[in-house]
Amino acid sequence: MSADWSIDGRAEVLAIRNRIREVVEYMKFELCPGKELIELTLGDPTCCGILPPHPDVLKAVSDSVLSGLHNGYKMSKGSEEARQALADKYSSPGSVLSPDDVYLTHGCSGAIQFAFQALLSPGQNVLTPRPGFSVYNTMCSSLQIENRLYRLDPARTYEADLTDLESKIDSNTGAIVVNNPSNPCGSVYSHQHLMDILTLAEKYRLPIIADEVYGNMTYSGNKFYQLGSISESVPVLSCSSLAKIWLVPGWRLGWLVIHNKKGILRQSVYDSFNKLSTLTLGPCSLIQGALPKILSVPQSWHDDVTRHIECTALTCYNSLQKAPGLTPIKPQGAMYIMIEIDFSKFPDIPNISEFVQLLCKETSVKLMPGSCFETNTAIRIVTVDKKEKMQEACDRICEFCSNHFKP
Amino acid sequence: MSADWSIDGRAEVLAIRNRIREVVEYMKFELCPGKELIELTLGDPTCCGILPPHPDVLKAVSDSVLSGLHNGYKMSKGSEEARQALADKYSSPGSVLSPDDVYLTHGCSGAIQFAFQALLSPGQNVLTPRPGFSVYNTMCSSLQIENRLYRLDPARTYEADLTDLESKIDSNTGAIVVNNPSNPCGSVYSHQHLMDILTLAEKYRLPIIADEVYGNMTYSGNKFYQLGSISESVPVLSCSSLAKIWLVPGWRLGWLVIHNKKGILRQSVYDSFNKLSTLTLGPCSLIQGALPKILSVPQSWHDDVTRHIECTALTCYNSLQKAPGLTPIKPQGAMYIMIEIDFSKFPDIPNISEFVQLLCKETSVKLMPGSCFETNTAIRIVTVDKKEKMQEACDRICEFCSNHFKP
Ligand SMILES: Cc1ncc(COP(=O)(O)O)c(C=O)c1O
Ligand SMILES: Cc1ncc(COP(=O)(O)O)c(C=O)c1O
Repeated sequence: MSADWSIDGRAEVLAIRNRIREVVEYMKFELCPGKELIELTLGDPTCCGILPPHPDVLKAVSDSVLSGLHNGYKMSKGSEEARQALADKYSSPGSVLSPDDVYLTHGCSGAIQFAFQALLSPGQNVLTPRPGFSVYNTMCSSLQIENRLYRLDPARTYEADLTDLESKIDSNTGAIVVNNPSNPCGSVYSHQHLMDILTLAEKYRLPIIADEVYGNMTYSGNKFYQLGSISESVPVLSCSSLAKIWLVPGWRLGWLVIHNKKGILRQSVYDSFNKLSTLTLGPCSLIQGALPKILSVPQSWHDDVTRHIECTALTCYNSLQKAPGLTPIKPQGAMYIMIEIDFSKFPDIPNISEFVQLLCKETSVKLMPGSCFETNTAIRIVTVDKKEKMQEACDRICEFCSNHFKP
Repeated sequence: MSADWSIDGRAEVLAIRNRIREVVEYMKFELCPGKELIELTLGDPTCCGILPPHPDVLKAVSDSVLSGLHNGYKMSKGSEEARQALADKYSSPGSVLSPDDVYLTHGCSGAIQFAFQALLSPGQNVLTPRPGFSVYNTMCSSLQIENRLYRLDPARTYEADLTDLESKIDSNTGAIVVNNPSNPCGSVYSHQHLMDILTLAEKYRLPIIADEVYGNMTYSGNKFYQLGSISESVPVLSCSSLAKIWLVPGWRLGWLVIHNKKGILRQSVYDSFNKLSTLTLGPCSLIQGALPKILSVPQSWHDDVTRHIECTALTCYNSLQKAPGLTPIKPQGAMYIMIEIDFSKFPDIPNISEFVQLLCKETSVKLMPGSCFETNTAIRIVTVDKKEKMQEACDRICEFCSNHFKP
């Protein structure tokens, strides 16, 4: 017996899109019988099973559990100790931070959500990179903010195309998102390039939301510059988390760090973050309690992790150069390679979703369509797994391309 | 040198109010020199230090940490295992649940946020109890929803005044919130009373958001009925968390359980929750991994905790009946006592905030003004601490009242 009334979801909520999650949780992939699945879709460094967190990190959390000291509510914006530890970590001569400049959030996603909510009104636009991480669009779709894409240039390892960026700014623009090092591009911006972006932001008086969740995860010869340290007169809201650098994305602890250059952000901006923090009262207290120790993992350990990823990434990069019709872009950091596809050479493959689905059906290699990152002409692979396995994946991709390539 | 531009927070965000957090984190209290502080404000069962979580719960989380199996991203709405465990726990003959009826959230607050976001549009109203928990207002203020208060009747241990409730319903009403057992009232509704509320909801075709975070925390002679089990034709969205029943509010793991009676909630409502889950990807994976074990804590342990709280609560209730000008309402569950104040008998105390501040200044007893719960004529005390300490607090309150009472 069915009722004579019914309730529907709201259009505004149904408009929310998280393209990565749509692929990862809902897209159907067929496998090639007899070929073992190689899963390169998710930017989750734990999937491969060979990159465990630092033992001190596990011990810190398990101590936090057993201490009995971290079961209660913390301050909404995060415990003083945790925020102090972050303020210390991110302070530099150019930007001395206090715990009041730091907010703990539900992952880097939560930090981005807070920054968008505090700075942007419905109807305004925010400039985000293309190709770029899907969460910017997700937040825009949930907050009725226009996600206005600016071009990254594959020919310059995905630096921002400044002319394009400038042309996209108008009176409704509320902020610029800079993602460095980049997902999906694997690019790491030079000091000069970051200064050029800052100059533009200064000219149009726009704050920058810096997604620095891969900060310091850079390959030989590339240095990471924290935007908040080098900015002189543009406020920078830096978003990050434990997800990538500490290899624990599931723990959902992130942070927003405010580099309030020249006091441009008024107290009311801080008040906004305080208010937003009271909605769901911050991330898990057990991880908060362990945070000071987690942040003390020696840099050499992080460097070792990055060296592993770099080594794998370069193997893949070299190998994929042999794939006809594909142009891998040499990565400089993070844990991804973008591969541009010349679709004119694959007449039997109509578009990017067909490409990844057919690839999986014929080779059991699963990777991410560029459509998750606002581009329909590229694919992304995650480069964290064992070198041999990645080599095997690349070989299969090369073979797939050879089979479908029509010169 | 200050800049010639500045950025302000957005009015919509600044409008967010969490009255409990305002008191707990920002209100200034003076203490009485020489008298030790007795802190009875925060509904945090861990504050008193005498109610640790069950050892199996700590072991489950610490195993989860050391297993290395729960560091990665889980499904946005929560891992299948965790949702299955909750579906099993909350299924009843009248409501058989599947994991797809369950969403993991950032605490019970996060579940309430999701329910409001999915069911209510800006400009609509939601009926919430008065006195009632502050988070309903917090969510309304953040979502531009009208928080329309319906009266609870202190003379009937804060049952809903059904006449008042019905009179508040109009064509813009989107849902009714029922909080049972209640914070701050300590009431536990009878089967009959819940059926009366369901009849009203059915008549106006309104879904119920049931805040059941204190479910089963009831005193002798009072039984908790899960609204989703007894409803026959009204959809119930039940919100809860580990905060109170498992004594770990800081862990921030909550859930929304959908009792979709007669399929009244269309698939698009589930889609809405799926979409909302992709914003910040759910609560901490380590706790998710431990959840099946956490939920298996023997009921006898929960009962022991409740007996302790009951015993303290009754001591306080009895003691406070001697305070001139105060009328404590006998609690039936949860961990609070509401005390109505006859302000006409305290001519030198102008209002509720002055009352709690003066009380603290003269006795070092800190408690919560009713203004956090939409009432200006009552105070709330938390009844989790040691009996002797609570007795001392009540004695000081009695003395304070005697000093200020003018018959
Ligand atoms: C660039 C970028 N920003 C933000 C995030 C989200 O991080 P978190 O999992 O901490 O929310 C990711 C995750 O892949 C990312 O790649
Ligand atoms: C009635 C009620 N609902 C919801 C909550 C929030 O619970 P959580 O801490 O799990 O978000 C509380 C906390 O005090 C409460 O008393």
